[in-house]
Amino acid sequence: MIAEILCVGTELLMGQVLNTNAYFLSRRLSALGVSQYHQTVVGDNADRLEEAYRLALSRADVVVTSGGLGPTVDDITKRVAAKIAGKELVRNPEAEEMLRARFARFNRPMTPNNLSQTMFTPDATLLPNPHGTAPGAIVPMGGGKVVIHLPGPPAELQPMWIDHAEPWLRARSGKTLVSRYIRIFGMGESEVDQCLSDLETGSNPSLSPYCSPGEVLLRATACADTTEAAEALLLPLLEEVRTRLGDVIYAVEENDAGSLARCAVEALKRRGWTIATAESLTGGLMASSMVEIPGASCVVKGGFVTYQTESKTLLTGVPAELIDRHGVVSAEVARAMAEGARERLGTDVAISATGLAGPDGGTPETPVGTVFVGLATAEATRVLPLRLTGDRTRIRTLTMKHAMYAVLKEAERN
Amino acid sequence: MIAEILCVGTELLMGQVLNTNAYFLSRRLSALGVSQYHQTVVGDNADRLEEAYRLALSRADVVVTSGGLGPTVDDITKRVAAKIAGKELVRNPEAEEMLRARFARFNRPMTPNNLSQTMFTPDATLLPNPHGTAPGAIVPMGGGKVVIHLPGPPAELQPMWIDHAEPWLRARSGKTLVSRYIRIFGMGESEVDQCLSDLETGSNPSLSPYCSPGEVLLRATACADTTEAAEALLLPLLEEVRTRLGDVIYAVEENDAGSLARCAVEALKRRGWTIATAESLTGGLMASSMVEIPGASCVVKGGFVTYQTESKTLLTGVPAELIDRHGVVSAEVARAMAEGARERLGTDVAISATGLAGPDGGTPETPVGTVFVGLATAEATRVLPLRLTGDRTRIRTLTMKHAMYAVLKEAERN
Repeated sequence: MIAEILCVGTELLMGQVLNTNAYFLSRRLSALGVSQYHQTVVGDNADRLEEAYRLALSRADVVVTSGGLGPTVDDITKRVAAKIAGKELVRNPEAEEMLRARFARFNRPMTPNNLSQTMFTPDATLLPNPHGTAPGAIVPMGGGKVVIHLPGPPAELQPMWIDHAEPWLRARSGKTLVSRYIRIFGMGESEVDQCLSDLETGSNPSLSPYCSPGEVLLRATACADTTEAAEALLLPLLEEVRTRLGDVIYAVEENDAGSLARCAVEALKRRGWTIATAESLTGGLMASSMVEIPGASCVVKGGFVTYQTESKTLLTGVPAELIDRHGVVSAEVARAMAEGARERLGTDVAISATGLAGPDGGTPETPVGTVFVGLATAEATRVLPLRLTGDRTRIRTLTMKHAMYAVLKEAERN
Repeated sequence: MIAEILCVGTELLMGQVLNTNAYFLSRRLSALGVSQYHQTVVGDNADRLEEAYRLALSRADVVVTSGGLGPTVDDITKRVAAKIAGKELVRNPEAEEMLRARFARFNRPMTPNNLSQTMFTPDATLLPNPHGTAPGAIVPMGGGKVVIHLPGPPAELQPMWIDHAEPWLRARSGKTLVSRYIRIFGMGESEVDQCLSDLETGSNPSLSPYCSPGEVLLRATACADTTEAAEALLLPLLEEVRTRLGDVIYAVEENDAGSLARCAVEALKRRGWTIATAESLTGGLMASSMVEIPGASCVVKGGFVTYQTESKTLLTGVPAELIDRHGVVSAEVARAMAEGARERLGTDVAISATGLAGPDGGTPETPVGTVFVGLATAEATRVLPLRLTGDRTRIRTLTMKHAMYAVLKEAERN
């Protein structure tokens, strides 16, 4: 099966909106084993949209559209597809019912132009939209081809895709796909590629890398008639990847919603540990990354942002004399920050970071990117010295990730 | 002038990489007054790329490519363009010089396949790449049309575009464009649109909205023969927008690199004030957003993450009895957190936030999204009650933005 993503919206052509829909859909389609060779963006213009539809339908079995289902005159996605299929849009009673129920629930009046959102070709299969007013649809285009209409807002598009479009596509293919997501920290993309290049050429099971700063995510996917058969296909590949990469793998999961911070919070929860933070260059980013995870409140007790030198003494009790002797960016200060935070908040673990995020302030001895991460437990305090590269944002983000990795490993240690 | 963005890379089709290049380029092209009607993504396949080039060149004057300039066999962007232009790629001595200098600087050996990055058509204008190995190029395609080749990594593409491609396009147009970015907080996108709809239809000067959670950014652009003439065209539009929107405008700037946190930090700096934070649901996000701004160290003294209830007492001295009486999510606790943080760190200002980010824990009296932001100064403490909607990430982000807006307004108050 070949699919093509067609995003409709002048706001995308103007750069007013980042196209996260194409990213989300291509990733999900790829995980379903669906091939994709083109993505297109067109504006709210009927002629150009028609041309784009015709081209996409000449190349693909499934054309997935995003945007243009709203109640304004610009919203032409359904109308142009119906024209190409040679059909009329008619009022869909099911869609009307959904819309009336929604407006009643929010106690808002429904305007006549809202009813344009209930117009579909008679053969369309509706996709409910619990997060917005415009239902989506799967529309037959002849020759076994279909167009899948999705709304533009990601908060509406994503659940509609996962809950309704994907099950339809899965049922249609008759095959079962099983994926595992292998999370890697501490090995670069090119090194991972070099290590696994022969495995990445396979198609069933397949292995694909996804990268973000400091991290690599591998998706391993197998396709078979049953879940058991697909899992059996995956097993040797997962074993081989584990053998080759070893300790840099920090999680193997069934979905890709994970993050280092989430794994760290969950490992702390499993262990029944609480954590405190003491942050200089990260300035709250480590604590915030953990608090972002629902349920973090039983793990994250609290923390300190010790950004100015004086705050390190005031809040985490780092002796001024220690700072004078070793400098604020030093292993000694990272150690004292972690120990001070742990003691003051009475937690099982504390994590600290001090360093130079730049762009200014570097010296030959302490260049920008010099960072020390401290980890204090009841037993001992360890300090991790880092030399990071990149801009201020990247150095702060990588520091947070190194810290989360250290917490995760500590919580998983026997 | 019509431009079309053509992104090359199988990793985009697989959803391995978010296409920030299309976003960046479409935004910059739009600010240059260049029209765009299509964007396309194709994989690393020579036949499909050739087809995509021919289609784009039939519709646009300038085709901007990203990706496929690297040293591997997949990197076909230049080769296929040269084929269409009916020219040969030859070794470019200037590019070779750049590349050798780069490898020498990093003291790394240059492999033969690196030399493929120095191959261009004889009529290509090179675009230097100080942040990577692959130079870009502007390549004439006949009939006055050009292809602009840019590298895939955003850290290379963006400076190359700003420093080299944009000046070339500006010089070619013979016109001068001047833009101002109007930042708005506290008024929704649709309300802004309603208020300014008649102004948004103009083309010179033009007015375009860009949205992110809780914020609207308006770009006003005018085109004329001289900077002075363009500024004179802009002035009445800016005046009219100011009159209509009033206080929700928090900044009017010459570039779009701003943020609420940056404006807050700069306003504090101008005032000579220091700030402390006390954060519950944001968990360090307010402090981190300010620390993200270079030079924040003379403003942000430090802060507290008071996530668990006990930490609010322990770190910011909120009386346990006050919490029992009013609950952790209350105006009284927000007030006490801000005052406690200000006192303990001895700053001019302190900002606090307590609230319910969800997804769990809501009650009929205190639903998810209930937030209190506290702002303490030497004179008084104010508390801002908020009812926010959305998921956990959005509620935390909006809380941070409301807090930064409050700080900014306080620092600007006479």
